[in-house]
Amino acid sequence: MSGSSTLESPIGVFDSGVGGLTVLRALRQALPDESMLYLGDTARLPYGTKSADTIIRYALQATAVLVERGAKLLVIACNTASTYALDALRDRYPHLPVIGVVEPGAATACAASRNGRIAVIATEGTARAGAYDAAIRRLRPNAVVTSAGAPLLVGLAEEGWFEGPVPEAVARRYLAPLFETGSAAENGNPPDTLVLGCTHFPLLRTAIQAVVGLDVALVDGGMAAASLAAEALAARGLAARSGMLPATRFLATDGAERFARVAQHFLSFPIDASMVELVDLQGIAAVAA
Amino acid sequence: MSGSSTLESPIGVFDSGVGGLTVLRALRQALPDESMLYLGDTARLPYGTKSADTIIRYALQATAVLVERGAKLLVIACNTASTYALDALRDRYPHLPVIGVVEPGAATACAASRNGRIAVIATEGTARAGAYDAAIRRLRPNAVVTSAGAPLLVGLAEEGWFEGPVPEAVARRYLAPLFETGSAAENGNPPDTLVLGCTHFPLLRTAIQAVVGLDVALVDGGMAAASLAAEALAARGLAARSGMLPATRFLATDGAERFARVAQHFLSFPIDASMVELVDLQGIAAVAA
Repeated sequence: MSGSSTLESPIGVFDSGVGGLTVLRALRQALPDESMLYLGDTARLPYGTKSADTIIRYALQATAVLVERGAKLLVIACNTASTYALDALRDRYPHLPVIGVVEPGAATACAASRNGRIAVIATEGTARAGAYDAAIRRLRPNAVVTSAGAPLLVGLAEEGWFEGPVPEAVARRYLAPLFETGSAAENGNPPDTLVLGCTHFPLLRTAIQAVVGLDVALVDGGMAAASLAAEALAARGLAARSGMLPATRFLATDGAERFARVAQHFLSFPIDASMVELVDLQGIAAVAA
Repeated sequence: MSGSSTLESPIGVFDSGVGGLTVLRALRQALPDESMLYLGDTARLPYGTKSADTIIRYALQATAVLVERGAKLLVIACNTASTYALDALRDRYPHLPVIGVVEPGAATACAASRNGRIAVIATEGTARAGAYDAAIRRLRPNAVVTSAGAPLLVGLAEEGWFEGPVPEAVARRYLAPLFETGSAAENGNPPDTLVLGCTHFPLLRTAIQAVVGLDVALVDGGMAAASLAAEALAARGLAARSGMLPATRFLATDGAERFARVAQHFLSFPIDASMVELVDLQGIAAVAA
């Protein structure tokens, strides 16, 4: 925590773009008394195709801004940055509690699954990196994990095209191979749990649930991270006093208009471009600890 | 989940004795609409000194009773059973979501710690097994974990002697070596987070916090497990409908009188021996999957 933060200081939320707003929404639900400061690095997205070193540098720059503005706890909403930058951020900011989305999502999946067969859909980068596979197996060594990239679902979410035949058809194409008995799933038992391993996917929850059926648990890493953030704030005695008026503020590195337009799909309230402050991360020295 | 469970079925909570009632209390707070069925294996405690095979057999027997009575989700409140029996229970009951207390406690500690220096107090068995050390390092490889057994704190909790000079003096004796700069802690930085790695210890929270100071985060594995249980029920669509009247029931394997007397220290409401049903686990076949 920076020296200037107090109980009323905001939770910092960092993402490569707008997808992390589903995590912000989950945080606002779990922690209605907390102020939030969201930073979307819209100028440099997507992170999924970049090298680990680059992602760490970007994450250090974004965190420098959030810490400078008093963030008392950091949530890395971006799956890719959670995978690569968590340790570097903790080393660089030894006074800041840092929470990613991958480990909490994996923990909820391990807790929610009955048969230990867990499917994961993610961006291609996250799927290829096998981040959820590794995190799940650390917690539940016997788990059978199958994962796939589902990039078109990101586009559908940003367009606000959440329900109906098109999103269901797209979701079915990605999901069918993961749930086919006798192929990826062993012993004829399909997965009973599906991790939504990209921050955009919770917006398509209804379509996805329709495709996989009601018996499959859908795990939203953002909700899991919000729950863990609440635990961490309580344990540290950092929770805001209730009754204080919390504020949510938005920072982006490019395209305030588009950010505001797309953000409305992700949040339960409208925002306009004047509410989005542009910041420049390029010039910030990203010095690891 | 057994074939006979419904949304209104109880959460099963299993412990070696009464300590798990702090986990029950956390579950009731996190999930006020859920019924609970608590089983304390009071005839065979403590588990901490028994072999892994024995603990697995006991856990399978206890779970058989809870599943027979319709438990829709199982929380292993006992740290020792969480450490040794989690995989065996999941293998034996592929339809039952199972949550222990060690992994959620470790996750909250990793999220709450700023400097990555985490202290753990537990029963001697849990401390010796290094369960929290391993779980924390799986989630945060750079963490520096120091742990100690603190058996007298269990006795103080069962006597209801929670606050004041005596519990503080006892706590100080156990905690001082973990927080001494320059010994267990490296680089002169003492731990900023303390895991209460025994279900009894949350009752002594005030005394423990007084000893370590307000800057140290106290992590209660029961609260973390309750939070994860809430996530898992939500993900699985297994949460009870709100407005239904939830019930909490108690099973024990011996000493209903003592169970009821000690339980009052752990719960926010009084119970008497007539509310505790005695069950016999000895004759139940404990067949692993």
